Amino acid sequence: MNVKSENGKLFIVGSGPGDPKLLTLAALETIKSADVILYDNLVNKSLLNFAKKTCIKVFVGKKPYENTISQSEINDLIRFYALSVENIVRLKGGDPHIFGRGYEELQFAKENNICASYIPGISSMQTTGLHDIPLTYRGISTGVWAITGTRKDGSLAADLHLAARSTSTIVIYMGMSKLAEIAQIYQEAGKGHTSACIIENGSLETQRKLICKVKDLNKEATRQNFANPAIIVIGDVVALAEEQETLEELLIGPLDESKNFFEG
Amino acid sequence: MNVKSENGKLFIVGSGPGDPKLLTLAALETIKSADVILYDNLVNKSLLNFAKKTCIKVFVGKKPYENTISQSEINDLIRFYALSVENIVRLKGGDPHIFGRGYEELQFAKENNICASYIPGISSMQTTGLHDIPLTYRGISTGVWAITGTRKDGSLAADLHLAARSTSTIVIYMGMSKLAEIAQIYQEAGKGHTSACIIENGSLETQRKLICKVKDLNKEATRQNFANPAIIVIGDVVALAEEQETLEELLIGPLDESKNFFEG
Repeated sequence: MNVKSENGKLFIVGSGPGDPKLLTLAALETIKSADVILYDNLVNKSLLNFAKKTCIKVFVGKKPYENTISQSEINDLIRFYALSVENIVRLKGGDPHIFGRGYEELQFAKENNICASYIPGISSMQTTGLHDIPLTYRGISTGVWAITGTRKDGSLAADLHLAARSTSTIVIYMGMSKLAEIAQIYQEAGKGHTSACIIENGSLETQRKLICKVKDLNKEATRQNFANPAIIVIGDVVALAEEQETLEELLIGPLDESKNFFEG
Repeated sequence: MNVKSENGKLFIVGSGPGDPKLLTLAALETIKSADVILYDNLVNKSLLNFAKKTCIKVFVGKKPYENTISQSEINDLIRFYALSVENIVRLKGGDPHIFGRGYEELQFAKENNICASYIPGISSMQTTGLHDIPLTYRGISTGVWAITGTRKDGSLAADLHLAARSTSTIVIYMGMSKLAEIAQIYQEAGKGHTSACIIENGSLETQRKLICKVKDLNKEATRQNFANPAIIVIGDVVALAEEQETLEELLIGPLDESKNFFEG
Protein backbone atom coordinates (compact mmCIF):
# COMPACT_ATOMS: atom_id res chain seq x y z
CA MET A 1 0.00 0.00 0.00
CA ASN A 2 1.09 3.51 -0.75
CA VAL A 3 1.46 5.85 2.15
CA LYS A 4 -0.04 9.19 1.21
CA SER A 5 1.30 12.50 2.38
CA GLU A 6 -2.19 13.60 3.37
CA ASN A 7 -4.39 11.50 5.63
CA GLY A 8 -7.61 9.87 4.46
CA LYS A 9 -10.98 11.12 5.62
CA LEU A 10 -13.11 9.35 8.20
CA PHE A 11 -16.91 9.33 8.02
CA ILE A 12 -18.77 8.21 11.13
CA VAL A 13 -22.01 7.06 9.54
CA GLY A 14 -25.34 6.00 11.04
CA SER A 15 -26.88 3.13 9.09
CA GLY A 16 -30.26 3.31 10.83
CA PRO A 17 -32.11 0.61 12.74
CA GLY A 18 -31.84 -2.22 10.23
CA ASP A 19 -34.13 -1.76 7.22
CA PRO A 20 -31.73 -0.78 4.39
CA LYS A 21 -34.31 1.72 3.08
CA LEU A 22 -33.93 3.74 6.27
CA LEU A 23 -30.41 4.70 5.19
CA THR A 24 -30.00 8.38 4.28
CA LEU A 25 -28.86 9.53 0.85
CA ALA A 26 -25.75 11.03 2.47
CA ALA A 27 -24.89 7.70 4.10
CA LEU A 28 -25.41 5.86 0.80
CA GLU A 29 -23.08 8.30 -0.93
CA THR A 30 -20.28 7.73 1.58
CA ILE A 31 -20.70 3.94 1.41
CA LYS A 32 -20.42 4.10 -2.39
CA SER A 33 -17.23 6.15 -2.18
CA ALA A 34 -15.65 4.11 0.62
CA ASP A 35 -12.25 2.49 0.18
CA VAL A 36 -12.61 0.84 3.59
CA ILE A 37 -15.73 0.15 5.65
CA LEU A 38 -15.36 -0.72 9.33
CA TYR A 39 -18.79 -2.02 10.30
CA ASP A 40 -20.53 -2.85 13.54
CA ASN A 41 -22.52 -5.86 14.68
CA LEU A 42 -25.97 -4.26 14.25
CA VAL A 43 -25.34 -2.94 10.73
CA ASN A 44 -27.44 -4.64 8.07
CA LYS A 45 -24.88 -6.57 6.00
CA SER A 46 -26.83 -5.95 2.78
CA LEU A 47 -25.71 -2.31 2.93
CA LEU A 48 -22.17 -3.47 2.16
CA ASN A 49 -23.37 -4.41 -1.33
CA PHE A 50 -23.58 -0.69 -2.16
CA ALA A 51 -19.80 -0.42 -1.83
CA LYS A 52 -17.27 -0.52 -4.67
CA LYS A 53 -15.88 -3.95 -5.59
CA THR A 54 -12.46 -2.90 -4.40
CA CYS A 55 -13.73 -1.69 -1.02
CA ILE A 56 -12.20 -3.45 2.00
CA LYS A 57 -14.91 -4.48 4.47
CA VAL A 58 -13.83 -5.13 8.03
CA PHE A 59 -16.16 -6.44 10.72
CA VAL A 60 -15.33 -4.68 13.98
CA GLY A 61 -18.52 -5.49 15.88
CA LYS A 62 -18.61 -6.16 19.56
CA LYS A 63 -20.88 -9.02 20.54
CA PRO A 64 -22.00 -9.52 24.12
CA TYR A 65 -20.13 -12.28 25.99
CA GLU A 66 -17.66 -12.78 23.15
CA ASN A 67 -13.99 -12.01 23.08
CA THR A 68 -14.10 -9.52 20.23
CA ILE A 69 -12.24 -6.47 19.01
CA SER A 70 -11.44 -3.68 21.46
CA GLN A 71 -11.98 0.05 20.90
CA SER A 72 -8.22 0.57 20.89
CA GLU A 73 -7.88 -2.00 18.08
CA ILE A 74 -10.62 -0.17 16.11
CA ASN A 75 -8.72 3.08 16.63
CA ASP A 76 -5.55 1.42 15.37
CA LEU A 77 -7.40 0.34 12.22
CA ILE A 78 -8.68 3.90 11.66
CA ARG A 79 -5.15 5.28 12.00
CA PHE A 80 -3.70 2.54 9.78
CA TYR A 81 -6.19 3.02 6.96
CA ALA A 82 -6.03 6.82 7.21
CA LEU A 83 -2.43 6.51 6.05
CA SER A 84 -3.24 4.39 3.02
CA VAL A 85 -6.70 5.16 1.60
CA GLU A 86 -8.86 8.21 0.90
CA ASN A 87 -12.28 7.40 2.33
CA ILE A 88 -12.85 5.38 5.47
CA VAL A 89 -16.45 4.74 6.51
CA ARG A 90 -17.13 3.76 10.11
CA LEU A 91 -20.61 2.25 9.75
CA LYS A 92 -22.67 2.00 12.93
CA GLY A 93 -26.22 0.86 13.70
CA GLY A 94 -28.78 3.60 14.45
CA ASP A 95 -27.32 7.07 15.01
CA PRO A 96 -23.63 7.25 16.02
CA HIS A 97 -24.35 10.01 18.55
CA ILE A 98 -27.28 8.32 20.29
CA PHE A 99 -25.60 5.62 22.41
CA GLY A 100 -23.34 4.79 19.45
CA ARG A 101 -20.04 6.07 20.90
CA GLY A 102 -19.37 7.82 17.60
CA TYR A 103 -17.96 10.91 19.27
CA GLU A 104 -15.11 9.01 20.90
CA GLU A 105 -13.92 7.93 17.46
CA LEU A 106 -14.32 11.45 16.06
CA GLN A 107 -12.17 12.76 18.91
CA PHE A 108 -9.55 10.07 18.29
CA ALA A 109 -9.46 10.99 14.60
CA LYS A 110 -9.09 14.71 15.26
CA GLU A 111 -6.35 14.12 17.82
CA ASN A 112 -4.55 12.15 15.12
CA ASN A 113 -4.99 14.83 12.45
CA ILE A 114 -7.51 12.76 10.52
CA CYS A 115 -10.33 14.82 9.00
CA ALA A 116 -13.56 13.32 10.34
CA SER A 117 -17.23 14.00 9.90
CA TYR A 118 -20.56 12.65 11.09
CA ILE A 119 -23.68 11.55 9.21
CA PRO A 120 -26.76 10.97 11.39
CA GLY A 121 -28.92 7.87 11.10
CA ILE A 122 -32.47 6.94 12.04
CA SER A 123 -32.30 5.82 15.67
CA SER A 124 -34.00 2.71 17.08
CA MET A 125 -36.54 4.73 19.04
CA GLN A 126 -37.97 5.94 15.73
CA THR A 127 -39.06 2.39 14.87
CA THR A 128 -41.91 2.74 17.40
CA GLY A 129 -43.88 4.49 14.65
CA LEU A 130 -43.65 1.32 12.55
CA HIS A 131 -45.63 -0.29 15.38
CA ASP A 132 -48.28 2.42 15.54
CA ILE A 133 -46.71 4.16 18.54
CA PRO A 134 -45.84 7.85 18.11
CA LEU A 135 -42.99 9.12 20.31
CA THR A 136 -44.90 12.33 21.06
CA TYR A 137 -48.59 13.12 20.90
CA ARG A 138 -50.18 16.43 21.77
CA GLY A 139 -51.94 16.28 25.11
CA ILE A 140 -50.48 12.86 26.00
CA SER A 141 -46.72 13.01 25.65
CA THR A 142 -44.84 16.30 25.54
CA GLY A 143 -41.46 14.78 24.86
CA VAL A 144 -39.31 11.72 24.41
CA TRP A 145 -36.53 10.71 26.76
CA ALA A 146 -34.08 8.11 25.47
CA ILE A 147 -31.86 6.58 28.14
CA THR A 148 -29.46 3.68 28.26
CA GLY A 149 -29.63 0.62 30.47
CA THR A 150 -25.89 -0.02 30.27
CA ARG A 151 -24.92 1.64 33.54
CA LYS A 152 -23.61 0.03 36.65
CA ASP A 153 -23.60 3.02 38.98
CA GLY A 154 -27.31 3.09 39.82
CA SER A 155 -28.00 6.20 37.73
CA LEU A 156 -30.55 4.32 35.64
CA ALA A 157 -32.72 4.17 38.74
CA ALA A 158 -32.26 7.90 39.38
CA ASP A 159 -33.25 8.80 35.82
CA LEU A 160 -36.24 6.45 35.87
CA HIS A 161 -37.51 7.99 39.12
CA LEU A 162 -37.50 11.37 37.36
CA ALA A 163 -38.95 9.83 34.19
CA ALA A 164 -41.89 8.35 36.07
CA ARG A 165 -42.82 11.88 37.14
CA SER A 166 -42.76 13.41 33.64
CA THR A 167 -45.31 13.18 30.84
CA SER A 168 -42.66 12.22 28.30
CA THR A 169 -42.34 8.92 26.49
CA ILE A 170 -39.39 6.94 27.88
CA VAL A 171 -37.31 4.78 25.56
CA ILE A 172 -34.65 2.56 27.13
CA TYR A 173 -31.85 1.29 24.91
CA MET A 174 -29.91 -1.82 25.89
CA GLY A 175 -32.12 -2.39 28.91
CA MET A 176 -33.24 -5.97 28.44
CA SER A 177 -31.20 -7.15 31.43
CA LYS A 178 -32.80 -4.44 33.60
CA LEU A 179 -36.49 -5.28 33.10
CA ALA A 180 -37.11 -6.35 36.70
CA GLU A 181 -35.41 -3.19 38.00
CA ILE A 182 -37.41 -0.98 35.62
CA ALA A 183 -40.70 -2.57 36.65
CA GLN A 184 -39.83 -2.17 40.33
CA ILE A 185 -38.95 1.52 40.01
CA TYR A 186 -42.23 2.30 38.27
CA GLN A 187 -44.17 0.36 40.89
CA GLU A 188 -42.40 2.23 43.70
CA ALA A 189 -43.45 5.47 41.98
CA GLY A 190 -47.06 4.24 41.85
CA LYS A 191 -46.86 3.99 38.05
CA GLY A 192 -46.79 0.21 37.63
CA HIS A 193 -49.87 0.30 35.41
CA THR A 194 -48.29 2.58 32.80
CA SER A 195 -48.37 1.02 29.32
CA ALA A 196 -45.09 -0.37 28.06
CA CYS A 197 -43.80 -2.02 24.92
CA ILE A 198 -40.75 -3.97 23.84
CA ILE A 199 -39.76 -3.80 20.18
CA GLU A 200 -37.27 -6.44 19.09
CA ASN A 201 -35.36 -6.14 15.77
CA GLY A 202 -37.20 -2.87 14.99
CA SER A 203 -37.68 -2.22 11.24
CA LEU A 204 -36.40 -5.67 10.19
CA GLU A 205 -38.65 -8.39 8.78
CA THR A 206 -38.13 -10.31 11.99
CA GLN A 207 -39.42 -7.43 14.16
CA ARG A 208 -41.81 -8.22 17.00
CA LYS A 209 -43.56 -6.13 19.62
CA LEU A 210 -44.91 -6.95 23.04
CA ILE A 211 -47.34 -4.63 24.85
CA CYS A 212 -48.08 -4.92 28.57
CA LYS A 213 -48.11 -2.89 31.77
CA VAL A 214 -44.66 -1.74 32.90
CA LYS A 215 -44.97 -3.86 36.06
CA ASP A 216 -45.26 -7.00 33.87
CA LEU A 217 -42.32 -6.26 31.55
CA ASN A 218 -39.98 -8.91 32.93
CA LYS A 219 -42.63 -11.63 33.17
CA GLU A 220 -43.95 -11.03 29.63
CA ALA A 221 -40.51 -10.71 28.04
CA THR A 222 -39.49 -14.02 29.62
CA ARG A 223 -42.74 -15.74 28.64
CA GLN A 224 -42.52 -14.55 25.01
CA ASN A 225 -38.76 -14.95 24.87
CA PHE A 226 -37.88 -11.36 23.88
CA ALA A 227 -34.17 -10.55 23.70
CA ASN A 228 -31.66 -8.01 22.36
CA PRO A 229 -31.50 -6.11 20.08
CA ALA A 230 -34.57 -4.44 21.53
CA ILE A 231 -35.86 -1.16 22.92
CA ILE A 232 -38.28 -0.67 25.80
CA VAL A 233 -40.92 2.06 25.44
CA ILE A 234 -42.86 3.33 28.45
CA GLY A 235 -45.69 5.86 28.40
CA ASP A 236 -49.27 6.63 27.53
CA VAL A 237 -48.47 6.73 23.79
CA VAL A 238 -48.24 2.93 23.96
CA ALA A 239 -51.89 2.88 25.01
CA LEU A 240 -52.69 4.69 21.74
CA ALA A 241 -51.46 1.64 19.82
CA GLU A 242 -53.66 -0.60 21.95
CA GLU A 243 -56.68 1.62 21.24
CA GLN A 244 -55.86 1.67 17.54
CA GLU A 245 -55.80 -2.13 17.44
CA THR A 246 -59.16 -2.28 19.18
CA LEU A 247 -60.55 0.32 16.80
CA GLU A 248 -59.36 -1.62 13.78
CA GLU A 249 -60.96 -4.82 15.06
CA LEU A 250 -64.24 -2.97 15.60
CA LEU A 251 -64.11 -1.34 12.19
CA ILE A 252 -63.23 -4.33 10.04
CA GLY A 253 -66.83 -5.59 9.65
CA PRO A 254 -68.84 -2.45 8.90
CA LEU A 255 -66.21 -0.72 6.78
CA ASP A 256 -65.71 -3.62 4.38
CA GLU A 257 -69.42 -3.65 3.66
CA SER A 258 -69.77 0.09 3.30
CA LYS A 259 -68.33 1.27 0.00
CA ASN A 260 -70.37 4.48 0.30
CA PHE A 261 -68.60 5.42 3.51
CA PHE A 262 -67.43 8.79 2.20
CA GLU A 263 -70.70 9.90 0.70
CA GLY A 264 -72.63 10.17 3.94
CA MET B 1 -60.94 13.09 -11.90
CA ASN B 2 -61.92 9.48 -11.70
CA VAL B 3 -63.25 8.24 -8.40
CA LYS B 4 -61.69 4.87 -7.67
CA SER B 5 -63.50 2.09 -5.91
CA GLU B 6 -60.52 1.61 -3.58
CA ASN B 7 -59.00 4.45 -1.63
CA GLY B 8 -55.50 5.76 -2.26
CA LYS B 9 -52.68 5.17 0.20
CA LEU B 10 -51.31 7.83 2.52
CA PHE B 11 -47.64 8.00 3.47
CA ILE B 12 -46.71 10.21 6.41
CA VAL B 13 -43.09 10.92 5.56
CA GLY B 14 -40.32 12.60 7.51
CA SER B 15 -38.11 14.70 5.24
CA GLY B 16 -35.41 15.31 7.83
CA PRO B 17 -34.06 18.60 9.18
CA GLY B 18 -33.42 20.38 5.87
CA ASP B 19 -30.37 19.05 4.03
CA PRO B 20 -31.87 17.02 1.12
CA LYS B 21 -29.16 14.38 1.59
CA LEU B 22 -30.57 13.55 5.01
CA LEU B 23 -33.66 12.10 3.34
CA THR B 24 -33.98 8.30 3.66
CA LEU B 25 -34.13 5.98 0.68
CA ALA B 26 -37.66 4.97 1.72
CA ALA B 27 -38.78 8.60 1.76
CA LEU B 28 -37.21 9.21 -1.64
CA GLU B 29 -39.05 6.21 -3.06
CA THR B 30 -42.44 7.46 -1.84
CA ILE B 31 -41.79 10.98 -3.15
CA LYS B 32 -40.94 9.51 -6.57
CA SER B 33 -44.15 7.47 -6.62
CA ALA B 34 -46.38 10.27 -5.28
CA ASP B 35 -49.40 11.46 -7.25
CA VAL B 36 -49.97 14.19 -4.68
CA ILE B 37 -47.58 15.73 -2.15
CA LEU B 38 -48.97 17.79 0.71
CA TYR B 39 -45.91 19.53 2.17
CA ASP B 40 -45.16 21.52 5.28
CA ASN B 41 -43.44 24.82 5.85
CA LEU B 42 -40.11 23.36 7.02
CA VAL B 43 -39.74 20.88 4.16
CA ASN B 44 -36.85 21.68 1.82
CA LYS B 45 -38.60 22.64 -1.43
CA SER B 46 -35.80 21.07 -3.51
CA LEU B 47 -37.11 17.64 -2.45
CA LEU B 48 -40.20 18.26 -4.59
CA ASN B 49 -37.97 18.02 -7.68
CA PHE B 50 -37.72 14.26 -7.08
CA ALA B 51 -41.45 13.90 -7.83
CA LYS B 52 -43.02 12.91 -11.14
CA LYS B 53 -43.90 15.74 -13.53
CA THR B 54 -47.58 14.96 -13.11
CA CYS B 55 -47.41 15.06 -9.32
CA ILE B 56 -49.67 17.67 -7.69
CA LYS B 57 -47.75 19.62 -5.03
CA VAL B 58 -49.80 21.39 -2.39
CA PHE B 59 -48.28 23.67 0.24
CA VAL B 60 -50.16 23.10 3.51
CA GLY B 61 -47.63 24.68 5.86
CA LYS B 62 -48.63 26.58 8.93
CA LYS B 63 -46.58 29.72 9.49
CA PRO B 64 -46.56 31.48 12.84
CA TYR B 65 -48.71 34.62 12.98
CA GLU B 66 -50.21 33.96 9.56
CA ASN B 67 -53.75 33.03 8.66
CA THR B 68 -52.91 29.71 7.04
CA ILE B 69 -54.51 26.33 6.45
CA SER B 70 -56.15 24.51 9.38
CA GLN B 71 -55.65 20.85 10.31
CA SER B 72 -59.26 20.16 9.35
CA GLU B 73 -58.61 21.57 5.87
CA ILE B 74 -55.53 19.33 5.55
CA ASN B 75 -57.66 16.36 6.58
CA ASP B 76 -60.23 17.32 3.93
CA LEU B 77 -57.47 17.35 1.30
CA ILE B 78 -56.26 13.89 2.40
CA ARG B 79 -59.80 12.51 2.13
CA PHE B 80 -60.39 14.23 -1.21
CA TYR B 81 -57.21 12.96 -2.83
CA ALA B 82 -57.64 9.46 -1.35
CA LEU B 83 -60.72 9.16 -3.55
CA SER B 84 -58.94 10.14 -6.74
CA VAL B 85 -55.25 9.15 -6.71
CA GLU B 86 -53.14 6.17 -5.65
CA ASN B 87 -50.28 7.61 -3.64
CA ILE B 88 -50.55 10.61 -1.35
CA VAL B 89 -47.39 11.76 0.42
CA ARG B 90 -47.74 13.95 3.46
CA LEU B 91 -44.24 15.43 3.68
CA LYS B 92 -43.20 16.87 7.03
CA GLY B 93 -39.98 18.38 8.37
CA GLY B 94 -37.91 16.21 10.71
CA ASP B 95 -39.65 13.08 11.98
CA PRO B 96 -43.48 13.06 11.87
CA HIS B 97 -43.69 11.37 15.28
CA ILE B 98 -41.31 13.72 17.10
CA PHE B 99 -43.39 16.88 17.58
CA GLY B 100 -44.65 16.51 13.99
CA ARG B 101 -48.28 15.65 14.75
CA GLY B 102 -48.06 12.84 12.21
CA TYR B 103 -50.04 10.43 14.34
CA GLU B 104 -53.16 12.61 14.31
CA GLU B 105 -53.21 12.39 10.52
CA LEU B 106 -52.61 8.63 10.59
CA GLN B 107 -55.56 8.25 12.94
CA PHE B 108 -57.73 10.42 10.70
CA ALA B 109 -56.78 8.29 7.69
CA LYS B 110 -57.53 5.01 9.44
CA GLU B 111 -60.87 6.27 10.70
CA ASN B 112 -61.67 7.08 7.10
CA ASN B 113 -60.62 3.69 5.76
CA ILE B 114 -57.52 5.11 4.08
CA CYS B 115 -54.49 2.82 4.27
CA ALA B 116 -51.73 4.86 5.93
CA SER B 117 -48.12 4.27 6.85
CA TYR B 118 -45.24 6.12 8.42
CA ILE B 119 -41.66 6.68 7.29
CA PRO B 120 -39.32 8.15 9.93
CA GLY B 121 -37.01 11.07 9.26
CA ILE B 122 -33.85 12.46 10.82
CA SER B 123 -35.04 14.74 13.63
CA SER B 124 -33.65 18.23 14.30
CA MET B 125 -31.91 17.14 17.50
CA GLN B 126 -29.63 14.95 15.38
CA THR B 127 -28.15 18.04 13.72
CA THR B 128 -26.22 18.75 16.94
CA GLY B 129 -23.62 16.27 15.67
CA LEU B 130 -23.04 18.52 12.65
CA HIS B 131 -21.88 21.10 15.21
CA ASP B 132 -19.57 18.74 17.07
CA ILE B 133 -22.03 18.07 19.88
CA PRO B 134 -22.94 14.40 20.50
CA LEU B 135 -26.37 13.82 22.06
CA THR B 136 -24.96 11.17 24.39
CA TYR B 137 -21.42 10.58 25.60
CA ARG B 138 -20.37 7.86 27.98
CA GLY B 139 -19.65 9.24 31.44
CA ILE B 140 -21.11 12.67 30.62
CA SER B 141 -24.62 12.22 29.25
CA THR B 142 -26.55 8.99 29.73
CA GLY B 143 -29.49 10.01 27.59
CA VAL B 144 -31.24 12.60 25.52
CA TRP B 145 -34.53 14.20 26.44
CA ALA B 146 -36.35 16.07 23.67
CA ILE B 147 -39.17 18.31 24.86
CA THR B 148 -41.34 20.93 23.25
CA GLY B 149 -41.66 24.58 24.23
CA THR B 150 -45.14 24.91 22.73
CA ARG B 151 -47.12 24.43 25.92
CA LYS B 152 -49.19 26.97 27.76
CA ASP B 153 -50.05 24.96 30.88
CA GLY B 154 -46.78 25.36 32.75
CA SER B 155 -45.68 21.78 32.13
CA LEU B 156 -42.52 22.96 30.37
CA ALA B 157 -41.35 24.27 33.73
CA ALA B 158 -42.19 20.97 35.44
CA ASP B 159 -40.23 18.96 32.86
CA LEU B 160 -37.27 21.35 33.00
CA HIS B 161 -37.10 21.09 36.79
CA LEU B 162 -36.77 17.31 36.38
CA ALA B 163 -34.37 17.75 33.46
CA ALA B 164 -32.05 19.94 35.50
CA ARG B 165 -31.66 17.03 37.95
CA SER B 166 -30.76 14.40 35.34
CA THR B 167 -27.50 13.79 33.52
CA SER B 168 -29.22 13.64 30.13
CA THR B 169 -28.82 16.10 27.29
CA ILE B 170 -31.94 18.28 26.98
CA VAL B 171 -33.12 19.40 23.56
CA ILE B 172 -35.99 21.88 23.40
CA TYR B 173 -37.93 22.15 20.15
CA MET B 174 -39.93 25.30 19.39
CA GLY B 175 -38.69 26.98 22.52
CA MET B 176 -37.27 30.25 21.21
CA SER B 177 -40.03 32.28 22.85
CA LYS B 178 -39.29 30.58 26.19
CA LEU B 179 -35.58 31.38 26.55
CA ALA B 180 -36.01 33.65 29.57
CA GLU B 181 -38.18 31.05 31.32
CA ILE B 182 -35.69 28.26 30.54
CA ALA B 183 -32.78 30.31 31.89
CA GLN B 184 -34.71 31.16 35.05
CA ILE B 185 -35.66 27.53 35.77
CA TYR B 186 -32.05 26.38 35.46
CA GLN B 187 -30.87 29.21 37.68
CA GLU B 188 -33.49 28.33 40.32
CA ALA B 189 -32.15 24.75 40.23
CA GLY B 190 -28.62 26.03 40.75
CA LYS B 191 -27.66 24.96 37.20
CA GLY B 192 -27.41 28.35 35.51
CA HIS B 193 -23.81 27.67 34.48
CA THR B 194 -24.67 24.53 32.48
CA SER B 195 -23.47 24.80 28.88
CA ALA B 196 -26.16 25.50 26.30
CA CYS B 197 -26.37 25.90 22.56
CA ILE B 198 -28.85 27.19 20.02
CA ILE B 199 -28.72 25.71 16.53
CA GLU B 200 -30.62 27.68 13.91
CA ASN B 201 -31.49 26.14 10.51
CA GLY B 202 -29.68 22.92 11.48
CA SER B 203 -28.15 21.04 8.49
CA LEU B 204 -28.86 23.85 6.00
CA GLU B 205 -26.16 26.03 4.47
CA THR B 206 -27.51 28.92 6.51
CA GLN B 207 -27.07 27.05 9.81
CA ARG B 208 -25.58 28.89 12.78
CA LYS B 209 -24.80 27.93 16.35
CA LEU B 210 -24.47 29.93 19.51
CA ILE B 211 -22.82 28.52 22.64
CA CYS B 212 -23.20 30.09 26.08
CA LYS B 213 -24.23 29.32 29.63
CA VAL B 214 -27.92 28.44 30.01
CA LYS B 215 -28.42 31.53 32.19
CA ASP B 216 -27.36 33.73 29.24
CA LEU B 217 -29.50 32.09 26.55
CA ASN B 218 -32.00 34.91 26.18
CA LYS B 219 -29.41 37.67 26.24
CA GLU B 220 -27.13 35.97 23.70
CA ALA B 221 -29.96 34.95 21.35
CA THR B 222 -31.22 38.53 21.32
CA ARG B 223 -27.75 39.98 20.84
CA GLN B 224 -26.94 37.61 17.95
CA ASN B 225 -30.48 37.73 16.55
CA PHE B 226 -31.20 33.98 16.65
CA ALA B 227 -34.73 32.95 15.67
CA ASN B 228 -36.87 29.97 14.61
CA PRO B 229 -36.44 27.39 13.19
CA ALA B 230 -34.03 26.49 15.97
CA ILE B 231 -33.38 23.98 18.72
CA ILE B 232 -31.95 24.65 22.18
CA VAL B 233 -29.48 22.11 23.57
CA ILE B 234 -28.59 22.06 27.27
CA GLY B 235 -26.03 19.81 28.93
CA ASP B 236 -22.39 18.98 29.49
CA VAL B 237 -22.05 17.56 25.94
CA VAL B 238 -22.11 21.17 24.73
CA ALA B 239 -18.94 21.77 26.71
CA LEU B 240 -17.29 18.99 24.65
CA ALA B 241 -17.73 21.13 21.54
CA GLU B 242 -16.15 24.06 23.32
CA GLU B 243 -13.19 21.90 24.38
CA GLN B 244 -12.89 20.52 20.86
CA GLU B 245 -12.69 24.05 19.44
CA THR B 246 -10.01 24.97 21.95
CA LEU B 247 -8.12 21.75 21.17
CA GLU B 248 -8.22 22.49 17.44
CA GLU B 249 -6.90 25.99 17.97
CA LEU B 250 -4.07 24.60 20.08
CA LEU B 251 -3.26 21.87 17.58
CA ILE B 252 -3.30 23.87 14.37
CA GLY B 253 0.32 25.04 14.67
CA PRO B 254 2.27 21.93 15.65
CA LEU B 255 0.28 19.46 13.56
CA ASP B 256 0.67 21.33 10.28
CA GLU B 257 4.44 21.34 10.75
CA SER B 258 4.69 17.69 11.74
CA LYS B 259 4.22 15.46 8.70
CA ASN B 260 5.91 12.64 10.59
CA PHE B 261 3.24 12.67 13.28
CA PHE B 262 2.35 9.01 12.82
CA GLU B 263 5.87 7.64 12.78
CA GLY B 264 6.68 8.46 16.36
